[in-house]
Amino acid sequence: MRVIGIDPGLATIGIGLIEAKSSQSVTALEWLTIETAANTPLPDRLGEIASDLALYLKETEPEIAVIEKLYFSVNEKTALDVAQARGVILATVAAEGIPIIEPTPPELKSCITGDGSADKKQMQSMVKTIFNLDETPAPDDAADALALAAFGAYQGENVTILV
Amino acid sequence: MRVIGIDPGLATIGIGLIEAKSSQSVTALEWLTIETAANTPLPDRLGEIASDLALYLKETEPEIAVIEKLYFSVNEKTALDVAQARGVILATVAAEGIPIIEPTPPELKSCITGDGSADKKQMQSMVKTIFNLDETPAPDDAADALALAAFGAYQGENVTILV
Repeated sequence: MRVIGIDPGLATIGIGLIEAKSSQSVTALEWLTIETAANTPLPDRLGEIASDLALYLKETEPEIAVIEKLYFSVNEKTALDVAQARGVILATVAAEGIPIIEPTPPELKSCITGDGSADKKQMQSMVKTIFNLDETPAPDDAADALALAAFGAYQGENVTILV
Repeated sequence: MRVIGIDPGLATIGIGLIEAKSSQSVTALEWLTIETAANTPLPDRLGEIASDLALYLKETEPEIAVIEKLYFSVNEKTALDVAQARGVILATVAAEGIPIIEPTPPELKSCITGDGSADKKQMQSMVKTIFNLDETPAPDDAADALALAAFGAYQGENVTILV
């Protein structure tokens, strides 16, 4: 089963694509970011995210997508930007007919490390171990996306029902 | 010049379509809402908004869109939902190549009523007057969308440069 993990953002969207034979046998196929320029108007940045992501989904044909839920104290302008970008990401994936799982950050951390309040280093270290990589995948957003994809693999049985 | 006003939301999106010969000569062509069902998963609701709005834009071919900026104390879950829906709306309009103006609520109220803190009744009363309607347009979201479209007409000179 091919799983895509997507770490939502406006400037940087993390993408991790994996192949999961079972929750015990996962392979990281690739990890990358989609980026938009800060000096571009917001509607155009959102439009770019939609078209770049739609193209990537058509090329890679994942069977399931894992997209992190929003979860922050929302007194920041950036939170609204991330929310607007996340809306575009959800709509784009839904338009391709791909089922979506939406874990919260604590659910993701708990699943990957066993600790719902794990820090970034613990998460990255576990991602390196899970996928048997020589180095910690970079940048952070792409590593987070691989963790999300691994979450999807671990939810295997439920996922199969959804699909 | 055909102007569309869009009042962002997840459950209800207000749409107001007007023809503006000048800021002194505006006609309300139609006002309506796009609605999504609360019991539908979020990604599907956002996907519906994208496809319904894209279809409406193709049918009506507005030359400019006016979409209200987000502007609230964001300690509410609904604020994030509106933000995610607004992102989809911006990306959909941008994908059609339609220039977008984004007034804040105070800018809109000030332009329509002369009072940046006008209440809903004052706004609706002015919308009725501006478009010379027999009754206040309903529902509220559609009336707000007509006010946004009127804002676009009043920004006429700037709009022409943008287009």
